[in-house]
Amino acid sequence: MSTQMEEAKKGKATEEMKIIARDEEVPLNFIIRGVALGRIVIPKNVRRENINPKGIGESLRIKVNANVGTSTDLCDPELEVLKAKVAVEAGADTIMDLSTAGDLDTIRRMILKVVNVPLGTVPIYQAAIEAARKSGSIVDMTEDSIFNVIEKHAKDGVDFMTVHCGVTKRIVEKLKDKPRFMGMVSRGGVFHALWIIHNNEENPLYKNFDYLLEIAKEYDVTLSLGDGLRPGCILDATDWPQIEELLTIGTLVERAREKHVQAMVEGPGHLPLHHIQTNVQLEKSVCKGAPFYVLGPVVTDIAPGYDHIVSAIGGALAGMYGADFLCYVTPAEHLGLPTVEDVREGVIAARIAAHAADIVRLGDKALKWDKLMSEFRVKMDWKNQLKIALDEKKAKEIRSKIKTSEDACSMCGRFCALKLYWKHLGRCV
Amino acid sequence: MSTQMEEAKKGKATEEMKIIARDEEVPLNFIIRGVALGRIVIPKNVRRENINPKGIGESLRIKVNANVGTSTDLCDPELEVLKAKVAVEAGADTIMDLSTAGDLDTIRRMILKVVNVPLGTVPIYQAAIEAARKSGSIVDMTEDSIFNVIEKHAKDGVDFMTVHCGVTKRIVEKLKDKPRFMGMVSRGGVFHALWIIHNNEENPLYKNFDYLLEIAKEYDVTLSLGDGLRPGCILDATDWPQIEELLTIGTLVERAREKHVQAMVEGPGHLPLHHIQTNVQLEKSVCKGAPFYVLGPVVTDIAPGYDHIVSAIGGALAGMYGADFLCYVTPAEHLGLPTVEDVREGVIAARIAAHAADIVRLGDKALKWDKLMSEFRVKMDWKNQLKIALDEKKAKEIRSKIKTSEDACSMCGRFCALKLYWKHLGRCV
Repeated sequence: MSTQMEEAKKGKATEEMKIIARDEEVPLNFIIRGVALGRIVIPKNVRRENINPKGIGESLRIKVNANVGTSTDLCDPELEVLKAKVAVEAGADTIMDLSTAGDLDTIRRMILKVVNVPLGTVPIYQAAIEAARKSGSIVDMTEDSIFNVIEKHAKDGVDFMTVHCGVTKRIVEKLKDKPRFMGMVSRGGVFHALWIIHNNEENPLYKNFDYLLEIAKEYDVTLSLGDGLRPGCILDATDWPQIEELLTIGTLVERAREKHVQAMVEGPGHLPLHHIQTNVQLEKSVCKGAPFYVLGPVVTDIAPGYDHIVSAIGGALAGMYGADFLCYVTPAEHLGLPTVEDVREGVIAARIAAHAADIVRLGDKALKWDKLMSEFRVKMDWKNQLKIALDEKKAKEIRSKIKTSEDACSMCGRFCALKLYWKHLGRCV
Repeated sequence: MSTQMEEAKKGKATEEMKIIARDEEVPLNFIIRGVALGRIVIPKNVRRENINPKGIGESLRIKVNANVGTSTDLCDPELEVLKAKVAVEAGADTIMDLSTAGDLDTIRRMILKVVNVPLGTVPIYQAAIEAARKSGSIVDMTEDSIFNVIEKHAKDGVDFMTVHCGVTKRIVEKLKDKPRFMGMVSRGGVFHALWIIHNNEENPLYKNFDYLLEIAKEYDVTLSLGDGLRPGCILDATDWPQIEELLTIGTLVERAREKHVQAMVEGPGHLPLHHIQTNVQLEKSVCKGAPFYVLGPVVTDIAPGYDHIVSAIGGALAGMYGADFLCYVTPAEHLGLPTVEDVREGVIAARIAAHAADIVRLGDKALKWDKLMSEFRVKMDWKNQLKIALDEKKAKEIRSKIKTSEDACSMCGRFCALKLYWKHLGRCV
């Protein structure tokens, strides 16, 4: 089977490209060219069926990912499946299964079965955890066991995989001499770092990157080049380990493209507002326009319980400056695994950020939604305002609790500015 | 009595300036100079006692305002007093009473009594509503009745007042020929516009601005030059009525300064992300560095039920670019009056935006909070993480519901990246 990129390089349109061109209201040739150049990815495993294909990359609508998955503290596969369903219902464009407890193969397959959007995983979790279960230590995973897990995920139909290829021996060793405030907060990154130090060997995913590309090519798995060294607090933002990893990732993006493998790049993390533009430009430049997938960015560390809002601020800015894909952050971030309701809130907050940035990115194409809402507001058409609200359910819930005169809202009651304007002045306009 | 600005122009420090210099960790001379130039305001009526003075303006911590107040649909003074208390507890720096129903004098005085922060009002509401009660129409308010209300508020000790002096006859008449998508969404703005059209007269607050300044000077009321023509939807952002009003306001700022009256400027409203920098720069330039007080900005129209998040995005950006004062927006915005819980959420969201921007604005002074949180995170010191959280109550509430091993969080359980890093790698750093 050919990858999307292989077809695109031949100038051929796949079924997925046609759907995406239609959904995004862009010329088909724009999609073909974007995929050929690696500036757009279409995460869809050749074995995956019945999913809505999504394009991620330049000039396309910003997409939103929701993470679900078990942990040793909370291992309830059915609950994680429910979270995945709720996330998709709330408008998540993709789901990642980050499970680290229970029967990992079964959980992944359960989620693959219920969601009709691209699914991503982080195979190193399973390799590390299975090693820990077998021998008691994650550092006992072997190169073979790592690649076996990757191949298994690919065979299961996983559409994109986070691979921490940029956590090299060089960076990990340099970390010994040059301190960092928060250390590492990426699980996958730490698993690799521990393995590298313990075995005194290069990161297998970096050393054998060509083999990784072979597997990715066979199943058209989109590589999500993970940021194992992302800053875990504002104080570490845009520091040398983060940027050195990004530079390595930049070289890997080019190698992936040579082998017709789709690749996107993961980004921070914790960044103050004024670092966001720099980070997006750096990624776009160093990684030659590869789609940028950001987690947050989290723009302050002080608000546990509200990190969906903190990240919506960072995500909107990142999107405005060119990030293509936002990983949601829920209100439970930095406290624990999210509840189902947290998942819902997280998706909505990320979608707000994405749309606010899409207004800048796509202009009228995004603005037509805002225009429609404004028309219904002018007409005091509450039924349709609520119907087209980003979260119809929540808007209706709030509105239903408010005692109000039918045509205005209880904020102004009979002294509604809009009503007065359109009754007495608006006619003249 | 002298105004803060009068004293500052003489190079004298008031008690309030000393407190603010200490609270903000800036040299006293910086405050004196800022107040003298009109780049910092200290809203405190000479009759107001026992309040924590706040400085609003350049290089000071960004402040957050919370609106409360009755409407004809929901008139429960005790509830609004409770909202004011809750807002202050949640960290609002100032409160505005926007009541438009019930016994307006009593409600205002109740709120003045319970809050120990600067209180703002919009006197034109009371003038218009009392006219409507008397004769059936708001356009029957007279110049005298408007100024009488202003004087009454000043005598009561109101610290700052929104005055829509920039809604001039010229703009209102021009609106007849040049259509605008949403018209006017400012109540005060519409009240003035209706009065101007009906009476075919100039806006009394514009025409008699010198008289307004006399009252403001007598009580040292800070004028908040209101944006009656703020855009009510993204489509109207940065349009001619908004900017023409701003230009008028710029001239009024200078006139206020000549009379030693403190003045700040209100800003939009609904703005797409990429208009925010322009709007802040315009205000700072046209209004000669006067403190900028923004409502939102609301960066998309599509998310009723989540406008606190929508506005936190806009507020953070505005703050980063130089806005000094954020008016909160609650989840109920565009749907009705907020509940007590909505007020709380609105204040917290605005404080997140303010702090994220303060990191850019103030550097280390703001970052020390983030640094402390990061230190507690590295140490897995949950007790102190929760204790210093922006919203301790909410963070504790979420954390208490999570079943987790004591020293990590349930997101990673035993595979906590931080724990692994500091146990196996961190020692070397």
